[in-house]
Amino acid sequence: MWANTIGKSYNKSVFRRVYLDNSATTPVDPRVVDEMLPFLKEDFGNPSSIHYFGQRARAAVDKARHQVAELINARPNEIVFTSGGTESNNLAIRGLIEAHVSSPHPGKGSAEVNGKRHIITTSIEHPSVKNVFEDLEKQSLEVTWLPAYENGIVRLEDVKAAVRDDTVLISVMTANNEIGTLQPVGEIGKLVRELRGSGRKIWFHTDAVQAVGKINVDVEEIGCDLLSLSGHKIYAPKGIGALYVRRGTRLHPQSVGGRQERRLRGGTESVPMIVSLGKAAELAASELEWDSLRLGNLRERLESSIAERIEDIEFNGDRDRRLPNISNISFRRIEGEGLLINLDMAGVAVSTGSACSSGSLAPSPVIRAIGRDDELARGAIRFSLGRENKEEDIDYLLEQLPRAVETLRHLAPKSRTQAK
Amino acid sequence: MWANTIGKSYNKSVFRRVYLDNSATTPVDPRVVDEMLPFLKEDFGNPSSIHYFGQRARAAVDKARHQVAELINARPNEIVFTSGGTESNNLAIRGLIEAHVSSPHPGKGSAEVNGKRHIITTSIEHPSVKNVFEDLEKQSLEVTWLPAYENGIVRLEDVKAAVRDDTVLISVMTANNEIGTLQPVGEIGKLVRELRGSGRKIWFHTDAVQAVGKINVDVEEIGCDLLSLSGHKIYAPKGIGALYVRRGTRLHPQSVGGRQERRLRGGTESVPMIVSLGKAAELAASELEWDSLRLGNLRERLESSIAERIEDIEFNGDRDRRLPNISNISFRRIEGEGLLINLDMAGVAVSTGSACSSGSLAPSPVIRAIGRDDELARGAIRFSLGRENKEEDIDYLLEQLPRAVETLRHLAPKSRTQAK
Repeated sequence: MWANTIGKSYNKSVFRRVYLDNSATTPVDPRVVDEMLPFLKEDFGNPSSIHYFGQRARAAVDKARHQVAELINARPNEIVFTSGGTESNNLAIRGLIEAHVSSPHPGKGSAEVNGKRHIITTSIEHPSVKNVFEDLEKQSLEVTWLPAYENGIVRLEDVKAAVRDDTVLISVMTANNEIGTLQPVGEIGKLVRELRGSGRKIWFHTDAVQAVGKINVDVEEIGCDLLSLSGHKIYAPKGIGALYVRRGTRLHPQSVGGRQERRLRGGTESVPMIVSLGKAAELAASELEWDSLRLGNLRERLESSIAERIEDIEFNGDRDRRLPNISNISFRRIEGEGLLINLDMAGVAVSTGSACSSGSLAPSPVIRAIGRDDELARGAIRFSLGRENKEEDIDYLLEQLPRAVETLRHLAPKSRTQAK
Repeated sequence: MWANTIGKSYNKSVFRRVYLDNSATTPVDPRVVDEMLPFLKEDFGNPSSIHYFGQRARAAVDKARHQVAELINARPNEIVFTSGGTESNNLAIRGLIEAHVSSPHPGKGSAEVNGKRHIITTSIEHPSVKNVFEDLEKQSLEVTWLPAYENGIVRLEDVKAAVRDDTVLISVMTANNEIGTLQPVGEIGKLVRELRGSGRKIWFHTDAVQAVGKINVDVEEIGCDLLSLSGHKIYAPKGIGALYVRRGTRLHPQSVGGRQERRLRGGTESVPMIVSLGKAAELAASELEWDSLRLGNLRERLESSIAERIEDIEFNGDRDRRLPNISNISFRRIEGEGLLINLDMAGVAVSTGSACSSGSLAPSPVIRAIGRDDELARGAIRFSLGRENKEEDIDYLLEQLPRAVETLRHLAPKSRTQAK
């Protein structure tokens, strides 16, 4: 009886909140909160302090370093804690360039690799990679921006063809943040190791912020020298991340102060946040397989139901080689932002493009980069699933979405419709 | 009867933990934890997201920005959140230099102030200021390191005398982190404003990490263009800080990505940490006066009792012009580290020098800079009081300290004693 009543209310679309924007940020896992709380309370010491309080904090940081290392098959001393994915990407790229390119920062790094001025990256990187390279371009470094094609995947042969004698860094993301497509990072890693085997000074960085915790990410399988990850995409709070730095890889620190993090990153360690990242990494390692399977199934249902119920849509990016939790769909004759707001009023949180680019009125550069026309780029919506999502969330979305799309298409000015 | 028993146990030195290292890091105020918890739980949105979850987070960040601004008499849009004091200092100094000095970072900033290559700072700055300047010295910038004299205070006339046509930045801390001495920042600010009034391009940064929350810090009274502060010195967690950037002051961002923090600092905002800093700032503003008075009295008792009970000691730094919560004392014929460890075994946490320099075996450069001999520099201990300290903590210290000093002095090898 009770179940029936619930069912009835539900069919009348009782308002609820459904969060389908897990690629923007995840809720914090309650087990992560529990783990960090003692370090907001009694265990508040500074890990650099020699006394009891300091040593308790130091032990917690060490434990977290092991947990994070284990998730990506690294050694603990290859993990540098940062304030998040953006800092990790900045430290990786600027740090490597300053350590190995003699100019334009004379004195800052050694001139070991004089004459190196070329970087290879993709046209679909996150702003925290893209904007660093645009900065470096202004400083007379040369950047090759590889295309991602219609499937949203860069090609190994393009990478190979782009390598020059003066190439110092290749930076290719593990998975794209808007469409979830997986890049051939293992193959690129193999290429870079071959080049290094033949004496070339060239390094490989991958921004794995979206991939970690969603698929198996293994620094040995990838063969990268530098790998960025972020806590708030894997159920830790915003404001903590890490950079994997393969032993022997020399970086110039970006923020100097005390001797913390092997002098690569000064500043008192954020013990509670580091503990939270450690716990989140441990949970990701143990639950990855099940989460991926479950979210992949939820997404399959989401996509097939949308395709059945709504016409004039396009799925963005390769539908096989991608993360299990992201679905990016373009709706013709609709402004994505309008749809986002309409869904938000119905309690459903989704996004257009990445949260980090919000405020920009231009259509998503990623959707443009995979060759979509302006209308499809403007009508793109990212649905990203997470550990808390249940079947009922998809049910609710599938109730609200067709109605919202119909309403907006009905309202669309003729001129826009014809402009199609 | 009960009270009596307590008293008796107490006199027999029942083991307890007494934390007197609040300048290294403070415990998190329980009210701060309560305020941040919702942002680790239900309010987990990304402030850049347009939907409900994002807007809740955005509102929290805005509120915190007001709270922090109010504490230092700034405007909310002059506050940039960072991951802590070290990042604030790095962003202030590197950001200003890169924006205003044409070389050695060609292309990174404009060449507006060509030919500017001189910086004035002090010999007692925190490593996160000192090490940035040492980095810049390697890049052909010139740095004048002002002396701090025996009282640990730099002199305005020295600052005046050091100013040159090509001086672009003066950076002087508000209060020293090891001995607590207050620097003449208001006078320096006035000088800089006069110079600017006469058309000079010169800016003033102050590292106020130790001063904020202990004494009244007002950016208008100081007249600074840039001011660094940190959460974990004012009862917020480690891993959050802020930089005050006076309107019109141009900085080159150090970590780029999304459009966060007026493009001065990319990366998803750490909402729970920002909320915690806001609350800590609000508490600091309302409790500063009482805390200062109370801690000043506790310290007075601590110092006069130590002077009565232990011979051959020296107080470091001016005893009037200093923060109310720091006492730095050199004990002759003792290694500070030995005393620290001995006290730690008795449950009392203090420090030698700053936590950020720990691991270094050299005597504190600050204590050396104020002209102390090697023995006094090696025998220096910082006692730093905080909001949680009570009379009983001082009682316990005064029980343990004379015993510890006596033990260590008794153990000291003759050669060291004679070396005195």
